[in-house]
Amino acid sequence: MDRSTDGAVTGIDGASSVYSAALAARRRSYGPNTSLSYEQPLMIVRGSGTYLYNDQGVQYLDCVNNVSHVGHGNAEVAASASAQLHTLNTNSRYLHPDLPRYTELLLSSLNAGCSNSSNSSSSCSSAGSCSGISGGCGNGSYSRAGAWCSDTPPATNSSSTISEIQPQPQPQPQRQQQHQTPSSSSTISQPSLEVLYLVCSGSEANDLALRIIAAARPGATHLAVMGGAYHGHTSALIQVSPYKFWGQGGTGRQPHVHVVPCPDPYRGENLDGRASARAVLAAAARAGGRLGGFLCESVLSCGGQVVLPQGYLQELYDELRRAGVLLVADEVQCGFGRCGGAFWGFQTQGVAPDIVTMGKPIGNGYPLAALATTRELAAAFAAPGMEYFNTYGGSTAAVAAGLAVLRVIQRDGLQHHAHRVGEYLLSGLGRLRAAHEVVGDVRGLGLFLGIEIVRDKASKRHAPATARWLKERMKARRVLLSTDGPYDNVLKIKPPLVFGITEAEILLGQLSEVLDQELTTDVRQQLSQREDEVWASVYGPRYLQYRENERMLYSGLPPARL
Amino acid sequence: MDRSTDGAVTGIDGASSVYSAALAARRRSYGPNTSLSYEQPLMIVRGSGTYLYNDQGVQYLDCVNNVSHVGHGNAEVAASASAQLHTLNTNSRYLHPDLPRYTELLLSSLNAGCSNSSNSSSSCSSAGSCSGISGGCGNGSYSRAGAWCSDTPPATNSSSTISEIQPQPQPQPQRQQQHQTPSSSSTISQPSLEVLYLVCSGSEANDLALRIIAAARPGATHLAVMGGAYHGHTSALIQVSPYKFWGQGGTGRQPHVHVVPCPDPYRGENLDGRASARAVLAAAARAGGRLGGFLCESVLSCGGQVVLPQGYLQELYDELRRAGVLLVADEVQCGFGRCGGAFWGFQTQGVAPDIVTMGKPIGNGYPLAALATTRELAAAFAAPGMEYFNTYGGSTAAVAAGLAVLRVIQRDGLQHHAHRVGEYLLSGLGRLRAAHEVVGDVRGLGLFLGIEIVRDKASKRHAPATARWLKERMKARRVLLSTDGPYDNVLKIKPPLVFGITEAEILLGQLSEVLDQELTTDVRQQLSQREDEVWASVYGPRYLQYRENERMLYSGLPPARL
Repeated sequence: MDRSTDGAVTGIDGASSVYSAALAARRRSYGPNTSLSYEQPLMIVRGSGTYLYNDQGVQYLDCVNNVSHVGHGNAEVAASASAQLHTLNTNSRYLHPDLPRYTELLLSSLNAGCSNSSNSSSSCSSAGSCSGISGGCGNGSYSRAGAWCSDTPPATNSSSTISEIQPQPQPQPQRQQQHQTPSSSSTISQPSLEVLYLVCSGSEANDLALRIIAAARPGATHLAVMGGAYHGHTSALIQVSPYKFWGQGGTGRQPHVHVVPCPDPYRGENLDGRASARAVLAAAARAGGRLGGFLCESVLSCGGQVVLPQGYLQELYDELRRAGVLLVADEVQCGFGRCGGAFWGFQTQGVAPDIVTMGKPIGNGYPLAALATTRELAAAFAAPGMEYFNTYGGSTAAVAAGLAVLRVIQRDGLQHHAHRVGEYLLSGLGRLRAAHEVVGDVRGLGLFLGIEIVRDKASKRHAPATARWLKERMKARRVLLSTDGPYDNVLKIKPPLVFGITEAEILLGQLSEVLDQELTTDVRQQLSQREDEVWASVYGPRYLQYRENERMLYSGLPPARL
Repeated sequence: MDRSTDGAVTGIDGASSVYSAALAARRRSYGPNTSLSYEQPLMIVRGSGTYLYNDQGVQYLDCVNNVSHVGHGNAEVAASASAQLHTLNTNSRYLHPDLPRYTELLLSSLNAGCSNSSNSSSSCSSAGSCSGISGGCGNGSYSRAGAWCSDTPPATNSSSTISEIQPQPQPQPQRQQQHQTPSSSSTISQPSLEVLYLVCSGSEANDLALRIIAAARPGATHLAVMGGAYHGHTSALIQVSPYKFWGQGGTGRQPHVHVVPCPDPYRGENLDGRASARAVLAAAARAGGRLGGFLCESVLSCGGQVVLPQGYLQELYDELRRAGVLLVADEVQCGFGRCGGAFWGFQTQGVAPDIVTMGKPIGNGYPLAALATTRELAAAFAAPGMEYFNTYGGSTAAVAAGLAVLRVIQRDGLQHHAHRVGEYLLSGLGRLRAAHEVVGDVRGLGLFLGIEIVRDKASKRHAPATARWLKERMKARRVLLSTDGPYDNVLKIKPPLVFGITEAEILLGQLSEVLDQELTTDVRQQLSQREDEVWASVYGPRYLQYRENERMLYSGLPPARL
């Protein structure tokens, strides 16, 4: 047992009777392939801001729950959804003023001007001042740079007119410029993402993207995706998610799906977007097909918290667009200001997707997701005359939650806050990297960060067992992290955006202590043996599969085994 | 304009500026193939019980929004979800006592004893009395028959133990016995649906069913579905939804999908479940495949509010189960007591599905859905080791909403209420059928009812234009209905379950007046011409497609064109 506050209700092993009963009932009656985090699962019963509390009242610093974007139990979002639940919560077949208001507000954020060459701070074009940063962000110098901002928060009173949001230039965050090679300085014209669909989940949004691609590119039935990507749990999405089809229990790649080798800036591999685009186009042709679409997260999450090299997505998009391929930016994890330097991840790459999918943070946990696309693609999807109806998508309470989330992000300057705290974290993590052999790489944008754990700096060999051990040791210190990436060796940091400098210091301090004090020579030796075992049984074969894919793509040869 | 209460904010055509702006913005920015109900869409801004209110305060009787199961704006459900949104709303990777509590409660309802032969009223086996019916239901004689009931309402205090629900026998509702031929009187043993998955939407639940079938029946890649069925909007589900693939904009049947001809008790067609099962098994074999699963709503909704003949599903299940086919009961529309005679639709047919999917009413509009299955199938799905994770599925606020819905249904006796009001409606609608040539059939179970509109009783020809006209005329009288069925000629009645005798009288009175006073000889002549047009352009070709499917299945010949 991993909890220290044993009171009257706890048993001899420290678990309360409520905990034991809940765990037994869950194991008995809930899907056996759903998972509980940590070796000893946590029973969390309350959340506030970026903290979670277990049934014994123990406080945990939450560094991973990116869905609770503006904070656990955020009163403003909860109140907004609650009021709507009491008043009316019905579907989009009735007109309601908040749905088109939300739709136009969200679309305006996507079409905000974007330049990936400027690092000068910008300000709203109108004379009034934006709402200041509140709640501990406090650094005025970040208050306007790269933000999708407005002089007036989105209106919620249904009698008011729809807010006009003034698009703002999106400068590239400074850190990216320091760490990456500069690309061309041309300003990319923004896509006209003028039509929105509201759905329930990121999976529904990405599945809808597949339907739109199929309608708009008939005959071009092949798809390209990024290595390590996860796009959702529907039947069709598992097929386009290498994280799943090459992961535990996966049944392999379907012939119509082509996997772009995931860039690995840390190891200097697969950094050429243009070459990758040409390789998947050729692979589709060799397989007798044609690519209809390319799905890609703008910052890779399940792929291992990978920041794409500057210019990478531009090159890839250029090449694929020329071949008529539709470009889908999956922003389910990286959108809504998390990246700090821009409101949307794709804006940090200076690209213009044809379709953008959104989820997780959009409703701060209230089930909501969205897909934005061009008028042309929406028309192609609608042309045959089949209605699209989503029972809960666009329902009134979901829209109320979505409006409140946008309002809080904007008013509290959470995008800038994410940028500032992210920079602070990266700086601190950089010091840990310098001091510790297992900390191979630290990277990220805003509050979307990864720490790649390796066996040693020279070999850069993946160390999933050590990453897992670190996660568990940090949990014992009341700091919640998780691991990700195809080799499960990247500690991910994706907290609620209200995570501040104080919390960054707690995280850095505890991680430093674990690395300094707990990761002894003895422990490293034990972990080394465990690394050998899991590499031999799980990750090594998967690594070979990804390598084989690269070989097949770049050499043009058929796969030896996939 | 169809609204009479024009105040200061309305324009010259009766539309308020808010209405006009919202309609324009919606048409500009929201998916063009999403629909708004009625020729002049309603802007609904408030709901209460089974009434909706537009922006001018005009009250409408809602006879169709089956998602708001326990009433629009139900304070108890809203308060339950709201409290949880303020406290904690996180995912199922943490343990929370309410998730397994809800899971076990929902599973207990599915495994309640079921007999389709008894029509005697039953009572709880324990000594205490069930909670009485409240809120206007008032007829004690229905308080216990066929209900999934409990002496204690589901507990909501997280410190209490999980409620033990006592399964109850499920007598067949009397009406069915009067209208249908009796089947064998043997009591069907219930399935062991012991494992639950919580997801976001009915679509996600049915898509998950496809994944489980694929895992548990490898190689048996063919699927059977019911004619006219709609199972959801994901890529994979459109392919198994004849309502879509043979409907407007559909691209036809995939070779691995086989369509069971929909029973039409009104016309005496396709009533033999055993013959249909054999036909689809043979069709799959002819196509070089093997059926892995059969998806079927227990009462057909998009198929045209069709009550399956007694014994039909038993025969079909028997035959398919013998061939190893997995049987999925889609309860997204008909579950949670709506059918009156039983808590679940499949219980009215006395069958034991391998998988049950649920959605719409489950959270009274809070996005939630579920899939229940056997331990064996869950194990087969889990065996390869692939995790199933659903971000919002099983999140704490969704579970709170789900628990509250079950509590309200049980405490307020809404299943019995649905039975009582449904019988009253059927009786009144029967009088309208006797009096009016266009009312071809009235049918249903509980508050899941259909009125089939025909050109005349002798021909029984479908009359979609007349059905649509009736819907619009009823809307002008502030009564909301909609149309369904492959030929769009069935007026559906699926109101919130709080719909009472008073509301039934309003509905019957207004419909009677429209039929008596508005459907004049002149109007019928105009509609007749319109019927000819829409049949020639839309419904006739679709009818031929369904007929061709029947011919192909029963004759074993390949299709002339599908």
